[in-house]
Amino acid sequence: MSDQKSDLSVGQNVVIEQGVTIGRNVTIGHGVIVIAGTQIGDGVIIGCHSVIGVRSIGGKQIRGSSAKTTTLIIGDNVRIGNLVTLYAGTKIGPEVIIADHAGIRENVSIGDSTVVGRGVMVELNTTIGARCTIQTQAYVTGDTTIEDDVFIGPCVSMSNDKYMKAKQVVLKGPHIEKAAKIGNNASLLPGVRIGKHSIVGAGAVVTKDVPDGVTVAGVPAAPLPDRRGDHEENSPG
Amino acid sequence: MSDQKSDLSVGQNVVIEQGVTIGRNVTIGHGVIVIAGTQIGDGVIIGCHSVIGVRSIGGKQIRGSSAKTTTLIIGDNVRIGNLVTLYAGTKIGPEVIIADHAGIRENVSIGDSTVVGRGVMVELNTTIGARCTIQTQAYVTGDTTIEDDVFIGPCVSMSNDKYMKAKQVVLKGPHIEKAAKIGNNASLLPGVRIGKHSIVGAGAVVTKDVPDGVTVAGVPAAPLPDRRGDHEENSPG
Amino acid sequence: MSDQKSDLSVGQNVVIEQGVTIGRNVTIGHGVIVIAGTQIGDGVIIGCHSVIGVRSIGGKQIRGSSAKTTTLIIGDNVRIGNLVTLYAGTKIGPEVIIADHAGIRENVSIGDSTVVGRGVMVELNTTIGARCTIQTQAYVTGDTTIEDDVFIGPCVSMSNDKYMKAKQVVLKGPHIEKAAKIGNNASLLPGVRIGKHSIVGAGAVVTKDVPDGVTVAGVPAAPLPDRRGDHEENSPG
Repeated sequence: MSDQKSDLSVGQNVVIEQGVTIGRNVTIGHGVIVIAGTQIGDGVIIGCHSVIGVRSIGGKQIRGSSAKTTTLIIGDNVRIGNLVTLYAGTKIGPEVIIADHAGIRENVSIGDSTVVGRGVMVELNTTIGARCTIQTQAYVTGDTTIEDDVFIGPCVSMSNDKYMKAKQVVLKGPHIEKAAKIGNNASLLPGVRIGKHSIVGAGAVVTKDVPDGVTVAGVPAAPLPDRRGDHEENSPG
Repeated sequence: MSDQKSDLSVGQNVVIEQGVTIGRNVTIGHGVIVIAGTQIGDGVIIGCHSVIGVRSIGGKQIRGSSAKTTTLIIGDNVRIGNLVTLYAGTKIGPEVIIADHAGIRENVSIGDSTVVGRGVMVELNTTIGARCTIQTQAYVTGDTTIEDDVFIGPCVSMSNDKYMKAKQVVLKGPHIEKAAKIGNNASLLPGVRIGKHSIVGAGAVVTKDVPDGVTVAGVPAAPLPDRRGDHEENSPG
Repeated sequence: MSDQKSDLSVGQNVVIEQGVTIGRNVTIGHGVIVIAGTQIGDGVIIGCHSVIGVRSIGGKQIRGSSAKTTTLIIGDNVRIGNLVTLYAGTKIGPEVIIADHAGIRENVSIGDSTVVGRGVMVELNTTIGARCTIQTQAYVTGDTTIEDDVFIGPCVSMSNDKYMKAKQVVLKGPHIEKAAKIGNNASLLPGVRIGKHSIVGAGAVVTKDVPDGVTVAGVPAAPLPDRRGDHEENSPG
């Protein structure tokens, strides 16, 4: 490795390729693999057996990203769990947590202090804001925009290809605006916009845009009647 | 490692930290990592690249558990697959199977002979009974109670925060009573109780308690008309 | 290893057991484990920390497969990601891509050029055709048939036991016919047949057979009214 700074703690059976930069006070668990081109900030902790800085395996069936770089940038004080994959061409903001078994592809940007839960998969060309919570096993498709302070419940599903490969179209994932909340196991269709501070109930299937400040639920999702007071926001109806 | 007993089979590139106890006739696959504080019973088999006895990575966004211990106790004849994460502060009963890619956090208790399927994620502070089946990719949220003989189908989703971080509340997952069955990809909302021997249809969204012995289905889930005889239990309606 | 051919590139901390055959121009990433009985074709690429040729861990709760062999056959130019599990007794056709965190069990056959997405789990005794796309986190249950050119969206769920272990029955997963398309997070019940070129909307719950060339959506899934022209195929209704 190159440019290694002070106070590096490295476990057993770790592979750090040439061309990796590592900040101060970094802890790297047993069996971690760090691929060339990775830049690790100060105070970063990486759990065991994670694979950091993966290059796309390509293949004719896999589209390329629009990433301009093959560098993976990991901000200060990021905490990465065990058995995680992080791709080159992505930027992880400071104080982010990426939990066990999660996978994040290339050309993704994640804002500071966001939590990416266990088993979450984030596809390429996606932007995630600051202070978001993306809970366990949620799926963030490619070409998605998630603004700041968004809550995505466990097992939420998204898609970005409304013709499911039947036509050649520009892929477009959902756009989830600031502080919106998506209930567990909800499905968001390609290109839908979820307005600021809106709420999608658990298990809802969102087929069209949701305005700001509205709660929707059901299949297909429809606005709930206005319920003043202490309503249960995670309700599907 | 300390206190190693007879007939231990260990693969290549294995890391066993100090302060691990290992029973008789244990098999540890290639690349396994066993963290300090792990107690492995007799006859345990661990597949390749699993990480056993993980300590929480903490961080200000991650709540602590109420676990009193940092010990991971793995009962006799437990079989653990490949690429699994098991946390410290958890107790796995005898004869349990934990399949590939599964992850189980701290302060979890699992009764004897239960099967935790591939890719299943179990969160902290959760109790799972004996002889349960939790199928592939199901999600068991934190602060959940699953009694004995429960069947949880593949891709079932649960949540434990009905305000999705909008308020400070006591988190509470579902309570699934003895011998209840949950169909594939059903969603259970925070704190719902599924009564004994009740059945939740595939894809149902359960928003309120289900009494004993009832079959519910749909979005939101509602009781099915009583159908005597050989009905199909996995039906959503 | 035995029978190793030319131009093999092997990373660090790799384990290749005795009784493995490896074709020409193969690349094996850091930390990969290749179990005895694996046959790797020409031009295969394997990402880091994958476990290739896994034998079933068995146990009284896990049924055996009907596989006649313990060989894993990986066709020419297959690309395998990181942290993948592939079982013995399975055959992967040429040009297939198996992405990170995916798991494929025993007695599975996958046709050429199919893509198995990240975190996808495929159970035992299942046949998948050529040129299929199985997107991220989808679940393909055991005893399933997927014909050629099928599209399975992200987070699709299937099941194969309509009594959820309450009775002893022959397990039967869905049968998805040629060029059918399944929207994201749809649920398919045991044994349902999805006809040729049919479309299942996102979030639909399919409880009975779908004829050829029909679009269904909703819970339970029902045919959509015929909408001529440029309709959105991924719609739930």
